[in-house]
Amino acid sequence: MDRPFIFINSAMSADGKISTKQRKQVRVSGNVDFDRMDELRATSDAVLVGIGTVLADDPSLTVKSNVRRTTRRNNGMNEDPFRIVVDSHARTPLDASIFDKGSGRILIAVSKAAPHGCVASLRQKAEIMVAGEDRVDLEELVHQLKNMGIDRLMVEGGATLNWGLLSHSLVDEIYTFVGNLIIGGVGAPTLVDGTGFGEDELLGLDLLSAERMDNGILLKWRITPRS
Amino acid sequence: MDRPFIFINSAMSADGKISTKQRKQVRVSGNVDFDRMDELRATSDAVLVGIGTVLADDPSLTVKSNVRRTTRRNNGMNEDPFRIVVDSHARTPLDASIFDKGSGRILIAVSKAAPHGCVASLRQKAEIMVAGEDRVDLEELVHQLKNMGIDRLMVEGGATLNWGLLSHSLVDEIYTFVGNLIIGGVGAPTLVDGTGFGEDELLGLDLLSAERMDNGILLKWRITPRS
Repeated sequence: MDRPFIFINSAMSADGKISTKQRKQVRVSGNVDFDRMDELRATSDAVLVGIGTVLADDPSLTVKSNVRRTTRRNNGMNEDPFRIVVDSHARTPLDASIFDKGSGRILIAVSKAAPHGCVASLRQKAEIMVAGEDRVDLEELVHQLKNMGIDRLMVEGGATLNWGLLSHSLVDEIYTFVGNLIIGGVGAPTLVDGTGFGEDELLGLDLLSAERMDNGILLKWRITPRS
Repeated sequence: MDRPFIFINSAMSADGKISTKQRKQVRVSGNVDFDRMDELRATSDAVLVGIGTVLADDPSLTVKSNVRRTTRRNNGMNEDPFRIVVDSHARTPLDASIFDKGSGRILIAVSKAAPHGCVASLRQKAEIMVAGEDRVDLEELVHQLKNMGIDRLMVEGGATLNWGLLSHSLVDEIYTFVGNLIIGGVGAPTLVDGTGFGEDELLGLDLLSAERMDNGILLKWRITPRS
């Protein structure tokens, strides 16, 4: 299937958590890692997040650096990458930061099961793509994104979207900043939640690089193609 | 409080899981890391695990290398370190590997709530320590261990025991081998489960070293003293 190059970028605690059990985002990394993330956004065609992340963190997903914004504008691009939310049941709030901040295209991907009224309201704010019956069909989504000219797609979580993409073999690389803290908790979201793999279906990785920064370490993994 | 030097040694997937959602242990690391773990066991006074790990994995906790066993014997020590299970309700099976394999002292730490019959049966197989009302009082346990001559205590999980020790500030260092695989799953045990810290109580770490081995990376963290 034709799809973009897709990578997950995330920061997690030393015990693999991306937020507390209350889904409170905590500062896992520092300024060097934030700048690295900003560079990734600025050099991606689109940024993808799940509805859980929108509801918990309300991210704007914009490029923060003025230099990078100017560079993008000078290259004839929008200052921000195409911002996309996977939102099966059209729960994105109409006052979400993604609508208030930044520039450029915004897409809400919903399933056929999304309430029509909610979809109609969101359509005033963003483009809408319908893919999948009860949940967004991620394969169809990324295929359509490729057709829309997206060659390089950055995924910024959360745990459920990461699982959806990884379990459908739709990820090429994973970049995890491992921060110098322990969060703990049975219920705290991890880098990859969802159903989880059984012992015979584990997903293999290659460690591309390990770089210390901000009192933690950035690990870059490549997904090993399944034989 | 007087207690041993306490460190956690664990292997986890790139997403922080120590086993699958079915609690099936998977091979996260390779021979280099196994040998490193064996060296840690051989140079520790005692090895500590939680009852969940005993029930799921049935580890023997013995030193595997004949050279290391001989060295310990020649130094007047038992071939295996003192093996200890935190088992609040005395659920350790009487046919657990820990009883069948290895040599030297074995201690089952139980709470006062443990069924007397189970405790009596286990007493035929191991030493018993009673500490705590309904759950083993970990502070009292490690204090008593120090009094028994344990200066260096290795903790081999699982996720709940790790949480108990970390949340009571009873850990000095954490060694995590991060393996080249994704396990995923909301219910899969992570390096640290339990209640989890709130956003204002997170546990800080210092990254002591990062060393690539066995297609993964070994991260050594020191707990930052709380101010």
